[in-house]
Amino acid sequence: MSARTLFDRIVGSLAATGVVKHAGKRRADRLAGLLRTLISERGEATGAVLARRAVALYRGLDPSGREHFFARLASEFSPDREEVLAAANAYHADPSPAHFATLQRVTEPPRQEAFRRMNMAPGGTAALLDLRREVIAAMKAHPELAVVDLDLAHLLGSWFNRGFLELRRIDWSTPAAILEKLIEYEAVHEIRGFPDLKRRLERDRRCFAFFHPALPGEPLIFVEVAFVNELPADVAPILAMESVVGDPRRARCAVFYSITSCQPGLRGVSFGNFLIKQVASDLHAELPSIKVFATLSPIPGLRAWVKRTLKDLEPDRATLEGLAAWYLTREWDGGHALDPVARFHLGNGARLDRINWMADGSSKGLAQSFGMMVNYVYELGDVERNHEEYVKRHRVVCSGAVERLANGVQPVVEKARGAPISPS
Amino acid sequence: MSARTLFDRIVGSLAATGVVKHAGKRRADRLAGLLRTLISERGEATGAVLARRAVALYRGLDPSGREHFFARLASEFSPDREEVLAAANAYHADPSPAHFATLQRVTEPPRQEAFRRMNMAPGGTAALLDLRREVIAAMKAHPELAVVDLDLAHLLGSWFNRGFLELRRIDWSTPAAILEKLIEYEAVHEIRGFPDLKRRLERDRRCFAFFHPALPGEPLIFVEVAFVNELPADVAPILAMESVVGDPRRARCAVFYSITSCQPGLRGVSFGNFLIKQVASDLHAELPSIKVFATLSPIPGLRAWVKRTLKDLEPDRATLEGLAAWYLTREWDGGHALDPVARFHLGNGARLDRINWMADGSSKGLAQSFGMMVNYVYELGDVERNHEEYVKRHRVVCSGAVERLANGVQPVVEKARGAPISPS
Amino acid sequence: MSARTLFDRIVGSLAATGVVKHAGKRRADRLAGLLRTLISERGEATGAVLARRAVALYRGLDPSGREHFFARLASEFSPDREEVLAAANAYHADPSPAHFATLQRVTEPPRQEAFRRMNMAPGGTAALLDLRREVIAAMKAHPELAVVDLDLAHLLGSWFNRGFLELRRIDWSTPAAILEKLIEYEAVHEIRGFPDLKRRLERDRRCFAFFHPALPGEPLIFVEVAFVNELPADVAPILAMESVVGDPRRARCAVFYSITSCQPGLRGVSFGNFLIKQVASDLHAELPSIKVFATLSPIPGLRAWVKRTLKDLEPDRATLEGLAAWYLTREWDGGHALDPVARFHLGNGARLDRINWMADGSSKGLAQSFGMMVNYVYELGDVERNHEEYVKRHRVVCSGAVERLANGVQPVVEKARGAPISPS
Amino acid sequence: MSARTLFDRIVGSLAATGVVKHAGKRRADRLAGLLRTLISERGEATGAVLARRAVALYRGLDPSGREHFFARLASEFSPDREEVLAAANAYHADPSPAHFATLQRVTEPPRQEAFRRMNMAPGGTAALLDLRREVIAAMKAHPELAVVDLDLAHLLGSWFNRGFLELRRIDWSTPAAILEKLIEYEAVHEIRGFPDLKRRLERDRRCFAFFHPALPGEPLIFVEVAFVNELPADVAPILAMESVVGDPRRARCAVFYSITSCQPGLRGVSFGNFLIKQVASDLHAELPSIKVFATLSPIPGLRAWVKRTLKDLEPDRATLEGLAAWYLTREWDGGHALDPVARFHLGNGARLDRINWMADGSSKGLAQSFGMMVNYVYELGDVERNHEEYVKRHRVVCSGAVERLANGVQPVVEKARGAPISPS
Repeated sequence: MSARTLFDRIVGSLAATGVVKHAGKRRADRLAGLLRTLISERGEATGAVLARRAVALYRGLDPSGREHFFARLASEFSPDREEVLAAANAYHADPSPAHFATLQRVTEPPRQEAFRRMNMAPGGTAALLDLRREVIAAMKAHPELAVVDLDLAHLLGSWFNRGFLELRRIDWSTPAAILEKLIEYEAVHEIRGFPDLKRRLERDRRCFAFFHPALPGEPLIFVEVAFVNELPADVAPILAMESVVGDPRRARCAVFYSITSCQPGLRGVSFGNFLIKQVASDLHAELPSIKVFATLSPIPGLRAWVKRTLKDLEPDRATLEGLAAWYLTREWDGGHALDPVARFHLGNGARLDRINWMADGSSKGLAQSFGMMVNYVYELGDVERNHEEYVKRHRVVCSGAVERLANGVQPVVEKARGAPISPS
Repeated sequence: MSARTLFDRIVGSLAATGVVKHAGKRRADRLAGLLRTLISERGEATGAVLARRAVALYRGLDPSGREHFFARLASEFSPDREEVLAAANAYHADPSPAHFATLQRVTEPPRQEAFRRMNMAPGGTAALLDLRREVIAAMKAHPELAVVDLDLAHLLGSWFNRGFLELRRIDWSTPAAILEKLIEYEAVHEIRGFPDLKRRLERDRRCFAFFHPALPGEPLIFVEVAFVNELPADVAPILAMESVVGDPRRARCAVFYSITSCQPGLRGVSFGNFLIKQVASDLHAELPSIKVFATLSPIPGLRAWVKRTLKDLEPDRATLEGLAAWYLTREWDGGHALDPVARFHLGNGARLDRINWMADGSSKGLAQSFGMMVNYVYELGDVERNHEEYVKRHRVVCSGAVERLANGVQPVVEKARGAPISPS
Repeated sequence: MSARTLFDRIVGSLAATGVVKHAGKRRADRLAGLLRTLISERGEATGAVLARRAVALYRGLDPSGREHFFARLASEFSPDREEVLAAANAYHADPSPAHFATLQRVTEPPRQEAFRRMNMAPGGTAALLDLRREVIAAMKAHPELAVVDLDLAHLLGSWFNRGFLELRRIDWSTPAAILEKLIEYEAVHEIRGFPDLKRRLERDRRCFAFFHPALPGEPLIFVEVAFVNELPADVAPILAMESVVGDPRRARCAVFYSITSCQPGLRGVSFGNFLIKQVASDLHAELPSIKVFATLSPIPGLRAWVKRTLKDLEPDRATLEGLAAWYLTREWDGGHALDPVARFHLGNGARLDRINWMADGSSKGLAQSFGMMVNYVYELGDVERNHEEYVKRHRVVCSGAVERLANGVQPVVEKARGAPISPS
Repeated sequence: MSARTLFDRIVGSLAATGVVKHAGKRRADRLAGLLRTLISERGEATGAVLARRAVALYRGLDPSGREHFFARLASEFSPDREEVLAAANAYHADPSPAHFATLQRVTEPPRQEAFRRMNMAPGGTAALLDLRREVIAAMKAHPELAVVDLDLAHLLGSWFNRGFLELRRIDWSTPAAILEKLIEYEAVHEIRGFPDLKRRLERDRRCFAFFHPALPGEPLIFVEVAFVNELPADVAPILAMESVVGDPRRARCAVFYSITSCQPGLRGVSFGNFLIKQVASDLHAELPSIKVFATLSPIPGLRAWVKRTLKDLEPDRATLEGLAAWYLTREWDGGHALDPVARFHLGNGARLDRINWMADGSSKGLAQSFGMMVNYVYELGDVERNHEEYVKRHRVVCSGAVERLANGVQPVVEKARGAPISPS
C-alpha cells in the first residue's frame, strides 16, 4: 500500500515533465497483462484475488492510462480473425454441437470474460459501469472503441435483466443517501433540495425506482407520480412545494411527470418501459379509483425542428400547437418518431392524447418547446395494439384533437418545404 | 385458469390413447412461437406479459411436450449458417466495429435472447434452472440438445457470477425452509433430520452457503466446517450427534468436511473454489487461533480404479494406502487428476496432506475407497503456487508421507500393468 | 471468569459437606447488598455496570442461594410499615399532590425499583422471567414469597402490555430456533418433531405468536389455526400429518385448535384474548370466505367433576354429553366458570356452541373428558354482549342444543346431590 | 368517520359562540367514562376496541376538552382516601401477603391502569407521551394536575427502562424522516438543514440515538460525537460545514459536543447517562486509538449567576474564567451543582477538566456564558469514584487548573457577598 502511495507521489511530481504519461501507460499495460492472466486457466484458482487487483489498478489509472488501457482492450481482446473464419466455415459445413461450441468460443471476445472476472471483485459491477461511461466518452475521439462499448452493453444488458431488478418505493423513510442521489440525478424537473423532494414524496405522490442487488444504494431509473383529479395541462401545480396534500383514494388520474435514467454506464439498457407498466399495474391494484394513467411530458426536439423547417417564419399560437402535433405524429427517423420522448412512450404503446399550451413556463420549457407539453396515456389493455401500430405501420395512435391539429398545419409544412406531402 | 384445468383433465384422459402426444406437441409449438415473438421488436413493449405467458406455458408442458420443445430450441433458435459465414468473411477482411457488431449479432443464438426474455417473468430464473436440468437429462438420448445446454451454461455462468452471489452463514436461526433444503441436498454425509443438522450448526461448527438474489430461498452450494484441535483422521467423531460442543476460540483446525453443490441446473458453473477461500479467509479473521484450514475428503474413484488396475489381486492395508496415494498423485486424465474430488481441491491450489485409513467406515465409504479419506490442506499463501504446479507441470503438491506412500507401490502398479512407468 | 470457575469448582467439591450452603448464602447476601446499592442514588451513575453484576450474580446462585435471596427479597425490600402509615394518614387528611407523591413513594416496594434496575442489564428481562418462575415454584413451600411474586406480576404485566407486543406469523420460513420452541412448548396437542410442525404451517393452516422486543426469540403465546369447511367435531383430521392440503380461499371456518402460553414467568399476564381477536380480525380481512371463527377445545376438568359429583355411577353416553353441557354452563366458582378453558373463552365473549362426542380419542382426551371436546364460537359482533352476560349475569351464552343437553341431566345432578337445584 | 367529520364541522362553526366549550367538555366526559369502563372487568374482553376508542377520543379533544379531561383525571382517578387508610392500618398491624396485596391495590391510582389500557391501542404510547407533555404545560396554571404528571412519569419511566431501548447509529443511510427529526430537535448547536447534518455524519463523526420499539421512528435522545486530535477549546471548527473530513482511526479524542433529549413527554426519565457511557464504551472497542472521551459543553447558567452575584461590577477576562470555575465547582443547590449541565455530567461521574475562553462565539454562547465552554472528561475507570465524591461529599472532581482558577476568585466572591466563605 505504501509502495503505491510512493508511486503516486512520484507520478504526481513528474506530471509536468511528461514522464507521467509513461507511468500511466505502464500501469495500463500492467492491468492488460493482469486481465490476460485472469482469463487464463490460472485465473480460476486465484480469481478473487486477481479480480480485486484488476479493479484497484483500474481505479488508480489516470486519464492517459485509461486511454491507453481502452485502446488495448479494443485491439487485443477481440476475437481472432483466423479462428473466427475457420469456425464459421466448419459451422457452415456442418452445424454440429462441436462446431457450434467452437464458433461460440472463438467469436466471443476475450474482453467479455475479462469483464466477468473483474465483476467478481467487491465493487466490480460499479467499476464496470464507470468503465463503460468512460469508454462512451472516449468513443467520440476514438470511434474504434465502439467494440469495447458493444461488449459492455451486451454484458450489462444481460446482467441488468429485469428479472434481477428490484422495484422499490421511495418515500420519506428512504435512506437520505438514496434521496440525495435522486436530487442529484433528476433530469426533467430539477429537485431543489430535501424540502422540495419531501413534497414529491407525500401521500398524494409516489416515487419508484429500480435497483440491482449488486448496487443496493444506486437507483437505476426512477419515476415520479402525482395523483390528481384530471389529466393535467400544466406542470406548475404539480411542482409547487406549498400545494395542499390531496387524498390518494379520491384521485382519478396518476400522472407520470418525471422519469430519469440514472446510470450513463447503462445507456441503451432500457428499464423505462418495465418501470412505467409495473408501477401502473401496482397502482391500479392499490387504488381502484384511479382510471387514467398518463404522463405530462416535454417535447425536447420541437423548437429545433420548427426552426429548421420554418426558418424565419414566426408562427402564431394555433400554428405552433399544430406544428407540435405534426412533429410528434408525422416526423419519423429510421422507423422511429423523431422526438426522443415520443419515441419512448409511443414505442411503449402509449397513446398521444393532448397538446398543452404553456404547460411548462420554465426557461428550459420555453427553449425546448415554446412551453408546450403533451400527455401520453397508458391504457394497459391497448398497449400491445398501439405498439403494433407504431412498429409495424409507423402510425402514431393519438386522439382526434391531436389528429385534427396535425392535419390543420399540413399546408404550412408543405409550403415551408416547397413540396406537397404524400400520405405516409 | 379453469379453462386450463379443463384442458389438463382432457389431456389426462387422453393419455392412454396417444392423442395426448399431439396436445403436448401443440403446446410446445405455441411456446416456441411465443419465444419468437418475444425476441422480436414487439416483445419489447409487452415483454413482461409475454414472458409470464412463456414461463407458464413451459411449466405446463408434459414430458412429450418438453421433448418437442427442446428439439425446436436446438434446431430453430441457432445462428443462421449463411449469415454466420458472411459475417465471418467480412470480419476477416476488415475487423471494423461495424463488422464486429454484425458478427456478434449473427453468431449469438436467438435462444440466448429468448432465455433472457423468459428470465424477466417472476420465477423466470428458477424456470431456466429447471429447463437446463431437464435438457441435461434429455441430452443422453438426444445429444443434439448439447447446443441448448451450451447456451444455458453460458448464460447462467454469466448471471451467477460470483460478484452477484451472497455468502450467508447458516445457523439455527436460519429459516426452516432453507435448513430443510440442506438436509435434502447434502451429498457427502447424509443429514438425518433436524436434530442431526442442529448439531452441525452448534458453535464449534459453521455452515456457509452462496445464494443468488433471484433465488433467495435456494442455496447454490454449501460447506460444513468443524473446529477441532488437530487435523482429523476420522469423520465419525465429527458426525456424532451427541458429541460435546467445543469452544471455537480454542480450536486450531477448521475442517471442511462436506461441500455440496445444490443445483443440477448450474452444472459446470463453479462456486466451490470461491466458497472455500472466502470462508477460510473470514474464519481466519474471526478466529485467530485457527492455524490449519483443511478438508476431510472422500476418494470417490479409488476402489473402481484399483479394481481396474489390479484385477483380482487382493492388496493388504499398506498396499492400499500406497495405491490411494498413487491414484491421487500419479493418475491423470486429460491434464486433470483422475479423481474428481482431488481434481477440485488440487485445482483450487490445495496440498494433499494425508491418507487416513478407516476414516469413513460407512458402507458408502467402504465401497468407494476401502474406508479411506484424505486431508487437503489450504494454505492461503501457497494456493497460487500449488495451483501453478498442478496446472502447468501436472504435479500434485503433497506431503513427504504421501509421496513416500506413492513411491512404495510403484512396483505393484508396474507389475499389474506389465510395464515400467516412466517419470511423468 | 476463571476465578469464578474456581469458585464453582470449590463449591461443587464442598457440596456434600454442607459448607456449600454457606457459600450460596454469601453470594445471595452479596446480591441483596448489590440491589440496595443499585436502588440508591449511587446506582444511577453506575447503573449499567451494577445491573450486569446483579444479573450475573443471580444467574450464578445455586438453589440454596436462591432460596436465601428470595427470603431477603420478601423480608427486606417491602414498604416500611411506619412510613406507609404516616403517608396514609397525611393523604387521608389532605390528598394534596405532595401527600400523594409521598404515598406513592413509600408504598411502592423497593423490590420494584431493584427489578427495574436489573432489567437494564443485557438479558435482564429474561432473568426476571426466570426469577418469577422460580419464586412461583418456591411459593408452595414458602407462602410468604407471595409479596415478591405480586411485585413481579405487577411489573411484568405493565411491561408486557399488549401495546408493546408484536404479532408475528409463524410459518416454514421462521427461524428453526423459534420453531423448535413451539415444538417444546406446545401444551394442547403434542407436536412430534419438525415434519409434524411443517404440516401445521401449510397454507391451509396458520400459526401466530406474540413476541416482546426484549425477548425477540421467545414466543410468549401462540395459536394454531386450521381452515376447514365446517365446524369440526373431531381433532384427529386436523392433527393428521398426511392429510391433503386445502385451499384457504375456499374455507368457511377458521378453527383455533391449540393455544399455548409459553412463559411460566408471565403467569396471570393474559394475552390470549388479544391474540384470538387480533388473529380473527386479520383473517377476516385476508380471507373473506371465512364466516365462522371457532375453537375445538378440551374440557380439562370434566371427568374429575363427574367423578366428584356422581361418585360410583356409570353414566351412559347421552348422560355424559348432558353432564358436559351442565358442567360448562351451570358450574361456577367465585363468579367464573369452573372449567379453566371455558372460563377463558366465555370470559373473552365466545359462545359455547357444541359438545362433540369422541372428538379427541387420545389417552389424555379420554382421561380429561371421556374424549369429548367443545366448540366455542367467536362472533366479533357479539363478543361484547356475551361477555356482559357472562360477567354481570353469570350466564353462559350457548346454543339451544347445549342448553337442552344441560337441562336434560338436571334430574341426574339433583339426584346425585340429593337436593333440587334452584335456578341461578 | 363521516359522522365525526360532521361533528368537527359543527364544533368548528360554533367555536365563536361559546357552545363549543360544552361540546369539548362533553367529549371529555365521554372519554373519562370510557376509561372507567376500560379499567373495569368488562374492559378485559373488549379492551382492544375500547382502547382504540379512547385514544381516538383523546386525539379529538380540543383545548377546553383537554383541560376538563385532565381535571377529571386528577380528581376522580386517584386512590380512595378511606381505602388507603384502612389498608395502611392493616399493613401496619400485620404486613402479611394479603395485607400487602390490598395495600398495593388501593394505593395504585386507577389512572395508571387507565393509561396502561390506553397504551394497548395502536399509537397508544405516542398518545400518552403527548398527554404528559400537555399535562406538564397545563400544570403551570393548574398545579393540582401534578398527581397526573407523577403517575405518567412513573409509568413512562418504567416502560422506557434502558433494557427496552435500542441504541442505533445515525448516519447518512438513516431514513430521511428520522434525520429530519434530529434537525428539528437539536437543542445545543442548531442544525441548518440536511447538508449541515450530512457533515455531522461523516466518518470523522458519530451520532447515536436511543429508540423505543413502540416508537420506531422517534429518537428519544441523541448525542453527536466528533473525533479530533486533542481536547477541543473551540466549537466552531467542529461545527464548520466545509471542514476536511478526518481519519477516525487516527483520532485521539472523542468529543461529545451535543446531547439532546427529544421528548418533552419523557421529562425526568434520564437516558443521557446510559447513552454517553454506552457510546464511549462502544467507541473504545471500535477505535483503540481514542484515549480521551470528553465533552465540549455550555455553561448555561453562568452569566445569570454572575449578574446576580456581582451586580454592576464588570470583571476582566481572568476574573470571568475564575468565576466560571467557582460557579461550576462551589455553587450548589440542594445537593446538586447549580448549573444544569454540570449537574448532569458531574452526576454521571465526569471530571471537570478545562474552562475554554471564547469557545462559543455565537450570540447564544455569549449571552449564556460570555462565550466560555468547558470540557468534562469521562474516564470510565474513575466514573464510580467521581460520582461518589459528588454525591456523598458534594465535591466536584476537577483538574488542578480549574481548582486554582476557582481559588483565585474567592476574594472577589467574598467581597461581592460581603462575607467570608467557609470551606464547604
